[in-house]
Formats: sequence, structure tokens, C-alpha cells
Amino acid sequence: MRSAMLLVAVWLGWVGSAAAATPVTAMVIHGGAGTISRESLTPEREKVIRADLDRALDAGQAVLGAGGAALDAVTAAVQVLEDSPYFNAGKGAVFNADGVNELDSAVMDGHGQRAGAVAGVHRIRNPVLLARAVMEKSPHVMLVGDGAEAFATGIGMALVDPSYFRTEERWQQLQDAKKRTSAGIALPRRYYFGTVGAVALDASGHIAAATSTGGMTNKRWGRVGDAPIIGAGTWADAGCGVSATGWGEFFIRLNVAHDICARVAYRGDALNDAADAVVMQRVPELGGDGGVIAIDAKGNLAMPFNTAGMYRAWIDRDGRRGTAIYSGH
Amino acid sequence: MRSAMLLVAVWLGWVGSAAAATPVTAMVIHGGAGTISRESLTPEREKVIRADLDRALDAGQAVLGAGGAALDAVTAAVQVLEDSPYFNAGKGAVFNADGVNELDSAVMDGHGQRAGAVAGVHRIRNPVLLARAVMEKSPHVMLVGDGAEAFATGIGMALVDPSYFRTEERWQQLQDAKKRTSAGIALPRRYYFGTVGAVALDASGHIAAATSTGGMTNKRWGRVGDAPIIGAGTWADAGCGVSATGWGEFFIRLNVAHDICARVAYRGDALNDAADAVVMQRVPELGGDGGVIAIDAKGNLAMPFNTAGMYRAWIDRDGRRGTAIYSGH
Repeated sequence: MRSAMLLVAVWLGWVGSAAAATPVTAMVIHGGAGTISRESLTPEREKVIRADLDRALDAGQAVLGAGGAALDAVTAAVQVLEDSPYFNAGKGAVFNADGVNELDSAVMDGHGQRAGAVAGVHRIRNPVLLARAVMEKSPHVMLVGDGAEAFATGIGMALVDPSYFRTEERWQQLQDAKKRTSAGIALPRRYYFGTVGAVALDASGHIAAATSTGGMTNKRWGRVGDAPIIGAGTWADAGCGVSATGWGEFFIRLNVAHDICARVAYRGDALNDAADAVVMQRVPELGGDGGVIAIDAKGNLAMPFNTAGMYRAWIDRDGRRGTAIYSGH
Repeated sequence: MRSAMLLVAVWLGWVGSAAAATPVTAMVIHGGAGTISRESLTPEREKVIRADLDRALDAGQAVLGAGGAALDAVTAAVQVLEDSPYFNAGKGAVFNADGVNELDSAVMDGHGQRAGAVAGVHRIRNPVLLARAVMEKSPHVMLVGDGAEAFATGIGMALVDPSYFRTEERWQQLQDAKKRTSAGIALPRRYYFGTVGAVALDASGHIAAATSTGGMTNKRWGRVGDAPIIGAGTWADAGCGVSATGWGEFFIRLNVAHDICARVAYRGDALNDAADAVVMQRVPELGGDGGVIAIDAKGNLAMPFNTAGMYRAWIDRDGRRGTAIYSGH
């Protein structure tokens, strides 16, 4: 029986190499890394968060299962997470020092090496859709601030009232952050984290990645983190895709997302080894923290994080599905 | 005689490896790549441009020659080019669609892997100095727009009146660009190019890179190009540094600056081969154009460009100095 299966596998492999490769799809999403302690996360809250991660995975999987593009899958998944109030992106994003939600997002399609990004927008319900529109409907890759919103209006994208993004919990975090900052007390990591992202491999062998965030609570001066920086928080090419979450400044300084893919491409590192080297060694060496999700062209997944937890969910190349928050599960 | 020199060289090499390495310094700067045709560049204009490139090189070399840091050398060189009206950075930058000079800059110190960047500033005389202040005086890497100017004011940096940046030639380019755009006619490359940058290796073996630009004439929507994107237009690490100039969108999509250094670090490519592969193959494959300047830890230089010309000047590891515009010289 086993040898018969092996023969079939060998035959399929031969057919695959002679004609089209057997289609493999895979997808992984994240809802942010940080000090998610078991104590601070109530069972009720954990349940709704896991449910929203599942819904995002479903949205992406529906695309991939129908033979759709990785780009559509990551867009759909991130849109669900932006609409959820439990993550620091879209609705439920953190507030900046002016009491405004200031949103950044990027999307990249490894097929054609196309990218789009927006930073510092205040009235775009789904920043990932605007990042994608920048990629597909403008000659540019990155638009920031009011200009990005003017572009959105120009292509007929509706603007929402800034109050749409507000949640009471985030508002209270800002008040607390202002008190702590005045008193010179460090902010809890949960005020920083919660960025969302998705990476997918589609049946055509194309990889795409998308990331969306509200950045850091109480941020000032038009600060832009790694999420909308192509190569830092978001990257996809023919062989590899990454979306990052964490202390953005360190991820920019290490060009984290592209560095992982470059190790795979130029040195033949296994995806897991490359992601581990960057996230578990390079980032902490500089004093940063966070995590990434990554996929390679064979459908291998990696999701290392050097924090207590990272919200994540995946469907691997064999169709196995999972959701996890802490190490292990 | 030759064998005696060889012996000395071997002995110096042995001393170098046993104690500190013989200090090598090198520097290369650019003033933009584009369709600089010999016809369009008058001898008078060529002369003043070469003189300003020389002055920028002198400013950097003064730092390196005194044993100073690569970071200080690239900052000094870029500052001279920003102050010159002949390049698209600082004074003499192109105008955006609103008739405003909108400036971007980044600086990166491979020693400590630190970086700073600003985008979309309108009242900062030397954006490279603000990018450096972001790196050294803020917890952030990238600040954009009004927020970046608020940060500048907060650290005591003077703002200039936006009229400071204006040159009549750039203003006329904007008027012409608006007419051409209305008529659906493509813009000449000289309306796009002229970004400035510098990369240096200091006697301590540290590499730094800096880039500054006004972006594209008639740009809209808060467009940000590759210059302030760490990894795309500007990168430095322990082994390699790059500053790019060209059609920014393509340089972001290929993460050009970091990709060159990753090829050197992970595959052992010679700097020249890595820079050529990215600039002469990858960028044109996607439909883009431009060039880069690069230095590795041994003081090797590379300065490929796939356009008709690129303003550039250098002092190599053997102290040989040069200035060139077209291929060859």
C-alpha cells in the first residue's frame, strides 16, 4: 500500500515537473505581537479575538480555495482584521498624541514585484484597500497624509468620519499613556502592538503580503513605523513573503521583511532559519521586539516572535488549520 | 624592487591582521542620474556642477581625512549639495503640483545600524540634518510632513521660508510639466532626477549613507519616493552602503539599496557585480531607470547607472579622486 502510494506520489511528481506543479496554497495571518499575558486576556476576550482571526483566515481561504490570487487573499484577510475592533488597525486603532487615529498600510504582490503603501491617513476605513489602490491605480508606491486621502477621493473611495475608528478602550489607553509619559513611566507593550497582517501563496505559485496598523499610542511628529515601509514591515517577491509586527523602528533599521527573503534567496537558508535569525537574534540584539509571519514558494510557513505572544492563524500547505496566541498554541 | 614592495605589502598585511587593519577611507557622492545629454549641458553649467560636486567631496574628505566618522562625512557632503541650486535637493529642488518644494531625506549609519528619515517637509533648509536629528534625538526613524517640522522646531532647528528653495528654472519646469501633463505628454527625465547622495567608509571601518531629494516635478498626493525609504534609496550596514537616484517607485519595489548589500553579505557577490545586477538588470526589467553609488567594507566603489549620465564624484581607497557625468568620465 505504502509503496503504491509512493509510486503515485512519484508519478504525480513527474507529471508536476513535466506539466504544471501540483497546486499548493498556504496562508498565515497575524494580529500583533506583544506582552499578551494569560492573566490580562480574559477567556471571553480570547474567544472573540480567536473568532475574528478565524473569520480573517476564512476570508483569505475562500479566495485561495477558489483558485484566486494571493493578493486578493491577503487583502480580504486584512480587511476583516481592520474592521474588527480588537486589533490596532482600522477600527480600534490606537490614538496618536493629538487624539486622532493615524493609519498606515502596505500591500505587495510578489508576482510582478508590485507594491502600494499609505501612511498617516485619518479617514480611510480600510487602509489596505487604499494601499492596494495606490499600487493598481496610481503611478506611485507610497502616498502619505492628506495627499493620500485626496487620491482616495479622486478614485471614488468614500472617506469615513474619524470617529468611526474610535473605541473606548483605545481612548482610555491614550489618556493613560499621556499620564505615564508626563510622569516618565514606560508604556505597556499592548499600547504599541496589535498591527495586523497576512501572507499567502496561491495556486499559481504567487506570493503576496499585506500589513495594516495604527502605530504606537500617543505617537507624535508624523511618526511612521515599519508597516508601510516596503522591505521593513511588508515584502513579497517570487520566492518569499513577510508581514511584520513589533517595535517598528527596529524593523526598519534591519529591513526585516526583505532581509528574511534575501537570506532565503541568496544563501539558500530555510525560511524558518532565516526568520528565526532575524527575529530571534538580530532584532533583540538591537534592543527591539516583535514577530513576523512568512511563507516561501513551497508553502512553508514561519511565524517566530520574541515577545510573550503573537496573535496568529494559518492554513498550511497540507490544509491543516490553526490559531494560536502564546508559544506552542 | 617589485619583490621588495611585495614583501612590504605582505608584512603590512600581517601587521594589519595582527593588530589594527591599515585604515582605509573612501567616499562617493552623486547628484542624480538621468538623460543628461551632452547637448543639453552647456560647458558653463557643467563647470559649476562639477565645482559643486568637488566642494561636496571636499567637505566629506575633510571629515574622513581628520579621522572623522563616515556619518559626519556623508552629512557634510549632502549638505553642500542641498545648498547648491543645481541639484534636486534643498535649494533648487523641484516643485510639486501645488507649487511647493516638498523634500525627503534619509541617513543611515552602518555602525549600530541606526537610521533617520523625513518626508514631505517644506521649511527645512537641510533635510539631511533633520533626518540625522530624527536618528539621534528622537526614538523614531521616520517622521513625515508637518509633524516632522514640529519635531524640528522642538529641537531648536530654524525653519526657513518656503521661498528659500525656489529657483526660476525649477519653477519654469513645473509650468511646463503642468502643460505637458494636461496634454498627456511625457515629462523629460530631468524633471524627475537630480537626487543627491553620499556614501563613505571611515578609518574605523564604519560605513554611512545619506540621500536627499525634492522628488518628481509636479508630484501629487503626498507621493514619497525611494530616497527616504530605508532599504530602498538609502542603506548602510557593517559591510556595505548605498545611496540611489532614479525613478523611485522601481527602487522601492526592488528594495534596491538593501538588495545590493544583501547580495554582498549573503552570497559573497563582489560589490560591483551586486550593484550591476540590480541597477543594470533588475531595475530595467521592471521598466525603471536610475543609478546608485555604493561602497563596501574594503573601500571598493561601485557607481552603475542605466541612464545617459549620472553626476558623481569619488575618492577611492587609494586616494584617487574623480568627477564624472557620462559613462567613462
